[in-house]
Amino acid sequence: MLQFRNDYSEGAHPQVMEALLSTNLQKTPGYGTDLYCAAAADTIRSLCSAPAAQVHFLVGGTQTNKVALGAFLRPYEAVIAPETAHIATHETGAIEQDGHKILTVPAPEGKLTPEGIQPLLDAHASEHMVLPRLIYLSNTTELGTVYSKGELAAISRFCRKKGLLLYCDGARLGSAMTVEGADTTFADYAALCDAFTIGGTKNGLLFGEALVVTTPALQPHFRYAMKQQGAILAKGRLLGVQFQAILQGDLYCSLARQANAMAQRLRLGLQAMGVPLAFPSPSNQVFPVVTRETARALAEVCAFEVQHPVDSHRLCIRLVTAWTTTAEEVDALLEALRGCLA
Amino acid sequence: MLQFRNDYSEGAHPQVMEALLSTNLQKTPGYGTDLYCAAAADTIRSLCSAPAAQVHFLVGGTQTNKVALGAFLRPYEAVIAPETAHIATHETGAIEQDGHKILTVPAPEGKLTPEGIQPLLDAHASEHMVLPRLIYLSNTTELGTVYSKGELAAISRFCRKKGLLLYCDGARLGSAMTVEGADTTFADYAALCDAFTIGGTKNGLLFGEALVVTTPALQPHFRYAMKQQGAILAKGRLLGVQFQAILQGDLYCSLARQANAMAQRLRLGLQAMGVPLAFPSPSNQVFPVVTRETARALAEVCAFEVQHPVDSHRLCIRLVTAWTTTAEEVDALLEALRGCLA
Amino acid sequence: MLQFRNDYSEGAHPQVMEALLSTNLQKTPGYGTDLYCAAAADTIRSLCSAPAAQVHFLVGGTQTNKVALGAFLRPYEAVIAPETAHIATHETGAIEQDGHKILTVPAPEGKLTPEGIQPLLDAHASEHMVLPRLIYLSNTTELGTVYSKGELAAISRFCRKKGLLLYCDGARLGSAMTVEGADTTFADYAALCDAFTIGGTKNGLLFGEALVVTTPALQPHFRYAMKQQGAILAKGRLLGVQFQAILQGDLYCSLARQANAMAQRLRLGLQAMGVPLAFPSPSNQVFPVVTRETARALAEVCAFEVQHPVDSHRLCIRLVTAWTTTAEEVDALLEALRGCLA
Amino acid sequence: MLQFRNDYSEGAHPQVMEALLSTNLQKTPGYGTDLYCAAAADTIRSLCSAPAAQVHFLVGGTQTNKVALGAFLRPYEAVIAPETAHIATHETGAIEQDGHKILTVPAPEGKLTPEGIQPLLDAHASEHMVLPRLIYLSNTTELGTVYSKGELAAISRFCRKKGLLLYCDGARLGSAMTVEGADTTFADYAALCDAFTIGGTKNGLLFGEALVVTTPALQPHFRYAMKQQGAILAKGRLLGVQFQAILQGDLYCSLARQANAMAQRLRLGLQAMGVPLAFPSPSNQVFPVVTRETARALAEVCAFEVQHPVDSHRLCIRLVTAWTTTAEEVDALLEALRGCLA
Repeated sequence: MLQFRNDYSEGAHPQVMEALLSTNLQKTPGYGTDLYCAAAADTIRSLCSAPAAQVHFLVGGTQTNKVALGAFLRPYEAVIAPETAHIATHETGAIEQDGHKILTVPAPEGKLTPEGIQPLLDAHASEHMVLPRLIYLSNTTELGTVYSKGELAAISRFCRKKGLLLYCDGARLGSAMTVEGADTTFADYAALCDAFTIGGTKNGLLFGEALVVTTPALQPHFRYAMKQQGAILAKGRLLGVQFQAILQGDLYCSLARQANAMAQRLRLGLQAMGVPLAFPSPSNQVFPVVTRETARALAEVCAFEVQHPVDSHRLCIRLVTAWTTTAEEVDALLEALRGCLA
Repeated sequence: MLQFRNDYSEGAHPQVMEALLSTNLQKTPGYGTDLYCAAAADTIRSLCSAPAAQVHFLVGGTQTNKVALGAFLRPYEAVIAPETAHIATHETGAIEQDGHKILTVPAPEGKLTPEGIQPLLDAHASEHMVLPRLIYLSNTTELGTVYSKGELAAISRFCRKKGLLLYCDGARLGSAMTVEGADTTFADYAALCDAFTIGGTKNGLLFGEALVVTTPALQPHFRYAMKQQGAILAKGRLLGVQFQAILQGDLYCSLARQANAMAQRLRLGLQAMGVPLAFPSPSNQVFPVVTRETARALAEVCAFEVQHPVDSHRLCIRLVTAWTTTAEEVDALLEALRGCLA
Repeated sequence: MLQFRNDYSEGAHPQVMEALLSTNLQKTPGYGTDLYCAAAADTIRSLCSAPAAQVHFLVGGTQTNKVALGAFLRPYEAVIAPETAHIATHETGAIEQDGHKILTVPAPEGKLTPEGIQPLLDAHASEHMVLPRLIYLSNTTELGTVYSKGELAAISRFCRKKGLLLYCDGARLGSAMTVEGADTTFADYAALCDAFTIGGTKNGLLFGEALVVTTPALQPHFRYAMKQQGAILAKGRLLGVQFQAILQGDLYCSLARQANAMAQRLRLGLQAMGVPLAFPSPSNQVFPVVTRETARALAEVCAFEVQHPVDSHRLCIRLVTAWTTTAEEVDALLEALRGCLA
Repeated sequence: MLQFRNDYSEGAHPQVMEALLSTNLQKTPGYGTDLYCAAAADTIRSLCSAPAAQVHFLVGGTQTNKVALGAFLRPYEAVIAPETAHIATHETGAIEQDGHKILTVPAPEGKLTPEGIQPLLDAHASEHMVLPRLIYLSNTTELGTVYSKGELAAISRFCRKKGLLLYCDGARLGSAMTVEGADTTFADYAALCDAFTIGGTKNGLLFGEALVVTTPALQPHFRYAMKQQGAILAKGRLLGVQFQAILQGDLYCSLARQANAMAQRLRLGLQAMGVPLAFPSPSNQVFPVVTRETARALAEVCAFEVQHPVDSHRLCIRLVTAWTTTAEEVDALLEALRGCLA
């Protein structure tokens, strides 16, 4: 079975496993108060050119979004997010469970713009409605599209002007920083956002998201919020060890680059076959539109997810590449698809 | 530095690491829907003689308690727990964060009894007070003491008679089942509790708690509650692989037995020196009472925690053994302590 | 200044005030455990032909929706509501504050249909999304439209088939039951809904909503949920006294009929002037579309609210009649508007 | 039947009812944005010598405590309260429902002291425990005792030194300010607390608590928190009208004085009979200790509540006077009790 279901189907990169193994029987203090976490946090602050940033390590993405937004917001404050946002669609109401409404903005390509946000602000003008307070976006987005530095900067300026916080979910940040033409760096996210995450789970770790909090007002007592949500890992060093391993040299970006390259190979092959793509995604998620028959046939040889029905006879499917994806696998997928199209 | 701070200072047992390594680059479905989790759940159901039990794998203990109690209770329902309960003292209000009051019962040795619970029920008789609904206990307790099968059965009968749920936090369940004279088995917990946990973090895993839900009314939609709380691990198989490894043969119990044996060696040594113990704990937590001077001196050569001040010149300290603790380390600790007593 | 802003601008109907006055210095038990509340509850059960229904009296509408939905739902369960629903737009995230996501359905005239709901159910098929559990609708709706008995029955059948709860917010239930052609009665709501409210605030009381819970599974411990939310009035009898007064004879319906009649007079006048209406509302809310200039001019002599901008030069405004509205006031409004249109 | 159950058994003072009646059919804007609320808020700011204070009007006491503490605290912040605090015992976990743990301090006479609070602060020193942030106290207390100005000032200084907020629940503030020897004024509460309430329900109103928020950092967006909790009354002016009526001249204090005087008459009578009192309460709650037989007999002629069992044959009962209590009623109660003692 070919595997294009997602980018977290396997374990960790061998260098990460090696780091875990080589430190396995050391005894360290718990809860992320160890030297490995301290070192990884330093590495991240340095990569971000943000010496005063707080860095927290958490296990999963939903958990990180939930803890961060729960800690940052007052009860009546709301999140603004694109209607495709992971927190709005696929986290089982995790943000609402902590009391916060998510206001969604139509986002055909998964991306926010100041112009798209403004009407929501206009419509929320009294205490009979929630108070919009934080903008959530993902880079790459859930549709595989990517914000450029200019686009992020425009949203960041808008937020600061309007008194809104800006939070970037970087579950696939590596992919966003390494697509062709990408112009954002860790330091850009630190400069433009009040907080953002560096995703490890989908880019080489067993698990782990690093949360970078740059805005001082959001920093006090954050670990209380983590603990209260059950989000401080007892053997916290597992996160520090893994992040320190993946952020050494160019490993983090090189893994993302490989996933992106394989997606690009896939897109070119699809284009050559005349298969249309639903979204202009340059990253490691590819969204071909195929007939239901084709999808059914393909599903027998390849694992993937259905994104949404397009019409009564066509589906948009999602094909995801990872750092483990090989050219041979992509070619095999294209070959298989060609057979299903016939 | 000698390490008696806790039982989660190191990574995983080599067999567990080996299992993770040997499956590392396999690609499997995410979120615990893989075959490794299925197999580990089967193993647990079999060990519990509970073929209809639900088994869920979560990353941490606070998280598991929070998700389970949050899912089991209606908003106005309260938890009854000993005043020493981990959820009452060291989980930063995680249960309250989901809306539930914890009513605590005085528990000099960390254990509940039906007689101790009854007055709380008597005192909560109208809608102006919360509705007690679930009994939380830990085995071993936070004071290292252990419930016998008879004691658990008495509480279980009491709960069923009063319409209360019984939940056992088994973060140290291995230790409880293997202390000298222990008479409880996995199957006993499954039979006596509505839900209980099998702790992996403190007994050989990198991380992981298995939650066993035996009462059918508590089973529907539990995974929704997990996901909403950010408690479904993306690479969920990491939990299945680890539990399957540790539950093979006698490994889980043998690790616990080793920790208990080292604690017993430590207790005998302390007794020989005339150092009093604050609690009659037969398990892997030992609570000597020493002077503040002794504690200060010992802290220079050994990591441990202070449990509580006894009076103006004495402290109760906590010494914890693990499956990694060796007889040499215990003897070195005793030797060091002897020097500090002088 | 003419008053068409809303239907809760004044105090209570004189018969209600009289009832409050005549019982004012009696001493009764608190918290709604008095004989007045018991009598009013009996009256409502009798009007509803629902002898086993629970009846609770609460102070306000947002409070009632919040307490009821919070009590009925498990944490991960979601509400389905029309996008115009009061709980979705004008209650400051009160439902989300208790942890529940509201999934909204497009509803051009403010009304739900089974066909409109089905796609949401189809789209929520796993634990990565919330679990739709309760349908919220209002009658009359926020756009002044009214569900017929047949329409409610269709939704009710759909809910029972799908395992969904049906909740009707009856803040303006009197108006819904007395518009021209109305075919619903108290007993219909009791038969078709799992719970519904009978609004007093907007129809003759100082304040008060009666919540009728017909489904037995939703009844246990409801007063705990009320108290926990601060929603049991200390001098609870004030609610019983008022409801008992307004539900005597035909008073409740006759007040609503008067409001409806005045709205109908207004609509006919608007029609005669050629002023278009945004929604086909037969009830006591009227939604003319006028130019911004007209709205501005009208605002100098009449209090009303702007519903929404229609385009760059036109607004939809909301004119609300109440049981206190007189034909003279309507005619004065029409006269004033005629001047503003010029 | 004699009525000494509580101080909210009847409606409102005639002057309050008269104010409601005389404004009943006026039309005003809703939600407390009317001129009556504005005037009452001005009156309170003036009484408090606190021109920058925010004043909010809410319907009930539990509601007010819940909205205020929920708005003031971050999720992991906890409340410190005496173990007898109303929020800890008789509000069905309303504070916990919003996520906040209440840490209780032993308080034999219902009162806090800095010395009693300090150990709790000492014991909460890391993110594994909640963060104490707000001190809750009531004046008069739930045991009828009263804080003097000096006692409040000491707690206030302690709070400011420790970075804690001070909140006073003034459900019976009138009684506290008018007991014999009382030395506190509205202005003292405004100066010493970050927020406090002026109770109307128990002192002459149909319902209503005024919340005074003096600390600027707690003021922004408070009405959002109110609305989100369903705590903005639609016909908000009912609160403004009532408070304006009761705060005219000396009415508020004179009603409290009457209740206190009747309690004092009762205490003197009990003393003369040799009936012991459980608490040294100088206010309108009196706590005699009687045998179970006496209590049983008394219950046949007088409504009252049992406070707690003293031992196997004695009970502490609670007798409450109100502004409506007459000397004749007190004497009749004493007479009745004398019969029951025999």
